[in-house]
Amino acid sequence: METEVVDAREAVRAALRGASSADLAALRAAPSRELAEALDELSPLELGSLFLRLGDEALADLVAELDPFDAARLLNKLSRAQAADVLEEMDPDDAADVVEELHPQTAEAILVEMEGDEASDVRDLLSYPPESAAGIMTPDFVALSPSLTADEALARLRQVAEEAETVYYAYVTDPITHRLLGVLSLHKLVFSRPSTQIGDLMVTDIAKVRADADQETAARLLDQRNLIALPVVDEDDRVLGIITADDAADVLLAEAGEDIERLGGSQPLEEPYLRASVLHLVRKRLPWLMVLLVGSAYTASVISHFEDTLAQVIALGFFIPMLIGTGGNVGSQTVTTLVRAMGVGEVKFGDLFRVLRRELMVGTIIGVALAGVTFLRTWIMGVSWEIGPVVGLSAFLIVVWAAAVSAVLPLILHRLRVDPAVVSAPFITTLVDGTGLFMYFTVAQMLLGLV
Amino acid sequence: METEVVDAREAVRAALRGASSADLAALRAAPSRELAEALDELSPLELGSLFLRLGDEALADLVAELDPFDAARLLNKLSRAQAADVLEEMDPDDAADVVEELHPQTAEAILVEMEGDEASDVRDLLSYPPESAAGIMTPDFVALSPSLTADEALARLRQVAEEAETVYYAYVTDPITHRLLGVLSLHKLVFSRPSTQIGDLMVTDIAKVRADADQETAARLLDQRNLIALPVVDEDDRVLGIITADDAADVLLAEAGEDIERLGGSQPLEEPYLRASVLHLVRKRLPWLMVLLVGSAYTASVISHFEDTLAQVIALGFFIPMLIGTGGNVGSQTVTTLVRAMGVGEVKFGDLFRVLRRELMVGTIIGVALAGVTFLRTWIMGVSWEIGPVVGLSAFLIVVWAAAVSAVLPLILHRLRVDPAVVSAPFITTLVDGTGLFMYFTVAQMLLGLV
Repeated sequence: METEVVDAREAVRAALRGASSADLAALRAAPSRELAEALDELSPLELGSLFLRLGDEALADLVAELDPFDAARLLNKLSRAQAADVLEEMDPDDAADVVEELHPQTAEAILVEMEGDEASDVRDLLSYPPESAAGIMTPDFVALSPSLTADEALARLRQVAEEAETVYYAYVTDPITHRLLGVLSLHKLVFSRPSTQIGDLMVTDIAKVRADADQETAARLLDQRNLIALPVVDEDDRVLGIITADDAADVLLAEAGEDIERLGGSQPLEEPYLRASVLHLVRKRLPWLMVLLVGSAYTASVISHFEDTLAQVIALGFFIPMLIGTGGNVGSQTVTTLVRAMGVGEVKFGDLFRVLRRELMVGTIIGVALAGVTFLRTWIMGVSWEIGPVVGLSAFLIVVWAAAVSAVLPLILHRLRVDPAVVSAPFITTLVDGTGLFMYFTVAQMLLGLV
Repeated sequence: METEVVDAREAVRAALRGASSADLAALRAAPSRELAEALDELSPLELGSLFLRLGDEALADLVAELDPFDAARLLNKLSRAQAADVLEEMDPDDAADVVEELHPQTAEAILVEMEGDEASDVRDLLSYPPESAAGIMTPDFVALSPSLTADEALARLRQVAEEAETVYYAYVTDPITHRLLGVLSLHKLVFSRPSTQIGDLMVTDIAKVRADADQETAARLLDQRNLIALPVVDEDDRVLGIITADDAADVLLAEAGEDIERLGGSQPLEEPYLRASVLHLVRKRLPWLMVLLVGSAYTASVISHFEDTLAQVIALGFFIPMLIGTGGNVGSQTVTTLVRAMGVGEVKFGDLFRVLRRELMVGTIIGVALAGVTFLRTWIMGVSWEIGPVVGLSAFLIVVWAAAVSAVLPLILHRLRVDPAVVSAPFITTLVDGTGLFMYFTVAQMLLGLV
């Protein structure tokens, strides 16, 4: 896998001709986006023939690796019966993700072609809110009764091994109430005396989540405990399904990606970038830009308030972008560092004063350094000598002010349950711009003796 | 677990008194940061007594859940022999992470107290570059000879089950050359006829990485293929160790966190925020701020170039922050969206013209909307009527220009192998600031008929 670069188109063509197990391996090794494109280029006829050559199971494996949207496009090209066969072979949670991307009528037509059990698993999964823990669970887990012996349990596992998403963990449930009693690893089962009752083997200190819990909470718990799977239970502690480690990792990575977009001042896109329509991009960006623009409009009032000062010393205008830009940069650094630190739980609201003290110290040091550079800049430009101290002192004040504001705001907003990523770099920049200008012109008036 | 909030201090105190299995469960359920703090508050004497009560294995489990830095602090308080016992019980990769945080002399003193095998595993791991695939692998995997039967293989697994980090996958290697031949799941082994040779059961189409491969590459491969573990091989295809899914997820999440920090214009911190010294924070932030400040210093020259224009129409100065701020915001949105999309492989260099065309369309729509708002703003402020068209037209041009620059730059820098996250929001803002000012004053000169 490592060095060998697989050309997806080449692999698809080879599979169309032969479909040996080596061709299948090459297909699986192709990067999923390129594979999706190569498969998308096939005519329905070619795709149907690939389906026949590979068989539904192998095709289901490939489809499961694609992005759900690409997978749905592909299924659209197959006959309803073929699409149903592929979905049946997929894990129900993956199948549900794909069905969600289909046109509702197509989805229904394919679901009725599927075997009853598989179809109802998919329907059940589709009924949960997409952001809930249940939205990423699979119902294919193994439930055992505590009275079984290790040997009987193994025999039972063998029966369901084909179907279950993981047989590495089995869940022990009460045969009557169906409540979750404990968890048993295949590992433990295999290496115990065959006659031991599994009620004695199971671990009862179980991490679990409620079906309506947040996806991210569930994923974090699984990640923190290094589990392979996490059971999802209803209000009566009955197991509904399990979340597997790979799905949890995908959720956490998607969250991190959304944080990145919010920090950039855009609402997260709901689909891959190149697939999102231009209007979708506009809708995700324009509202926030409007808010920021209206917010920054007061900077015009601030400067107009100091119109006479500016008219008397035009050179003050030269340094406006440099000064407010620096304030914005300091704010942007501080906010992103804190948002990340809060995201991974390194910093919480109780640390407010500690954070503020640190950022004031950092701001003071950085402020002195940057004030020196801005002072130097005025000197190089050869503007009137009195301008230098005004610009330097303003730079210092603006940096410290930006550091303080951006240290405090994310923590407070987090406390108020506003996502701190909303306090994006653009937001802080806009906030610091106007206040910074006010400082700048006030310092100018004082040092230059203007009124 | 889910609803029950565990107080770490309470749990530690209960364990000091009793150390029943329930106390241990409570300790494990405590959030790791609070647990680290509660353990840190214990005197060496109390910690020693906790060690005796819990036993080295249970304590090792707890220590493994802590951040390596906190774990190292804790080990410092134990006797050398106790610390060695705890490290022996930990997985070697986790133990190596902790040893790395110890003072070299302390580390050496503890390593010599450890059992030879365990100590040399840790030493081996410490010798690999920390960012390489080998840096996150564990040497505790199971290697089997292809001539064993399923039954013999199970017996062998049973022997090593205690030691190995996972027995869910076993690696089949050539008994003489030690080359990797295939992989075998416990699942397959358990459910096959006992007399089958494992050479016939193993899967030979194996995903694997070289020891010197990048950590992130390895983690992505594991994540994409939904594996529980990924073998790490040397140049002769001999297995050195395995990377497990939980470690891979941690690597991918850490990378996402670093991207967030870079986008904010700061170098990623190497330690948790509250633990980083003020000087560490300054060092990570000041260099980039200096670069940006020196870069933005040319904005002063741009405005000074148009000094006469500004002096004739002071009101032009009012709208400088609003206009360049808007350009910066548009650039910041576009850059972060693209950096994220490139990070997950949705966009690549070959998409350059597609991306540019999309962003120009998005920029045009957004530009028209924002131009309207800025025009309105001049009207509300009651400045001379000729200023309105100048500000509105400039806003439009600046938005389109910012969209184009920030669509193209991340892709080109990615092609040149510069991390696109370096093209942070502050960088784009600075770049767009000066060019935007130039547009603004040129438009003003033309529309207002100034020279």
